[in-house]
Amino acid sequence: MVESGSILELHSQCGISETMLAKTFVPRHLLDSRCFSSVNSKILKVGDVLREARVFSSEDVKGYAEVSHDWNPLHFDQESARKAGFENRLVHGMLVSSMFPRIISAHFPGAVYVSQTLHFRSPVYIGDDILGIVQATTLRETKNKYIVKFSTKCIKNHSELVVLDGEATAILPNLEMLQPSHLE
Amino acid sequence: MVESGSILELHSQCGISETMLAKTFVPRHLLDSRCFSSVNSKILKVGDVLREARVFSSEDVKGYAEVSHDWNPLHFDQESARKAGFENRLVHGMLVSSMFPRIISAHFPGAVYVSQTLHFRSPVYIGDDILGIVQATTLRETKNKYIVKFSTKCIKNHSELVVLDGEATAILPNLEMLQPSHLE
Repeated sequence: MVESGSILELHSQCGISETMLAKTFVPRHLLDSRCFSSVNSKILKVGDVLREARVFSSEDVKGYAEVSHDWNPLHFDQESARKAGFENRLVHGMLVSSMFPRIISAHFPGAVYVSQTLHFRSPVYIGDDILGIVQATTLRETKNKYIVKFSTKCIKNHSELVVLDGEATAILPNLEMLQPSHLE
Repeated sequence: MVESGSILELHSQCGISETMLAKTFVPRHLLDSRCFSSVNSKILKVGDVLREARVFSSEDVKGYAEVSHDWNPLHFDQESARKAGFENRLVHGMLVSSMFPRIISAHFPGAVYVSQTLHFRSPVYIGDDILGIVQATTLRETKNKYIVKFSTKCIKNHSELVVLDGEATAILPNLEMLQPSHLE
């Protein structure tokens, strides 16, 4: 576990409401990262950890298949999943991976993804409680932007079991982090 | 360009109909990779290339944001995209990346993703014509399954411009490829 530095948590339950987003398409406060007060802002430093929990539902898996066109039977047919050695239907690995850019861009609107490595180490089943953990490991300023490397991993069901890990690099427009209270 | 070996192409236009999938949830022929005739089957070998073209629409980007919760303004607000140095609204990099497991699992239902590296080299804009290219580079049999490494890349608008590349590893249940005619 890499939990030094400050820890910021987002939960789907208490974060951005999907209904709200669907209505407004994208809220104004996501379009302007400077609209939060300095009292609540925090400057990212190496070691800081950002986290978000999520449970992927059957509807999430279907929604992801509709947009990705990835209808691998492992995600839809229990018998196919069992034949392949799994206990149940799997969540698409790339859907789980989407937690990393989501966590980064929720704190740094306008972040540009440069790279991501992904190792799918253990199955994620529909209904598993997944915690995405993103930690800044290196930070470099260039032309008023910031190139930040993050270690990225997901653990499941409140255990130490890493289901997915890797590394991401993103270009951040600034180092001021949006705080969870601003996402509610 | 890596186009040696046989080339199989899928096009969204002539591939699986989303409407059909939405109605049946997942077609029977995707649940049983043995239901195609040996006349039309082909055994994967090192060097074989699988390809699929796709144009990501504004609705695709919104659909992906709804399922991933990634509402980065670069994907929704032209002004934010321009401020960040882009010509227009970007398609989520991880949505473009979803082409790789989609291409692999469309040919090998039951494929299990092991790893993926991703380098986002150039922006993908809504409306760009993206060609996903997946080539088998190494192949190893183990316990009646096959561990296959693929080089993976996307080029855009019929140019040589690589917008995204990397490498994927997948475990395939067998080496018999579904052919496009079986996906129509």
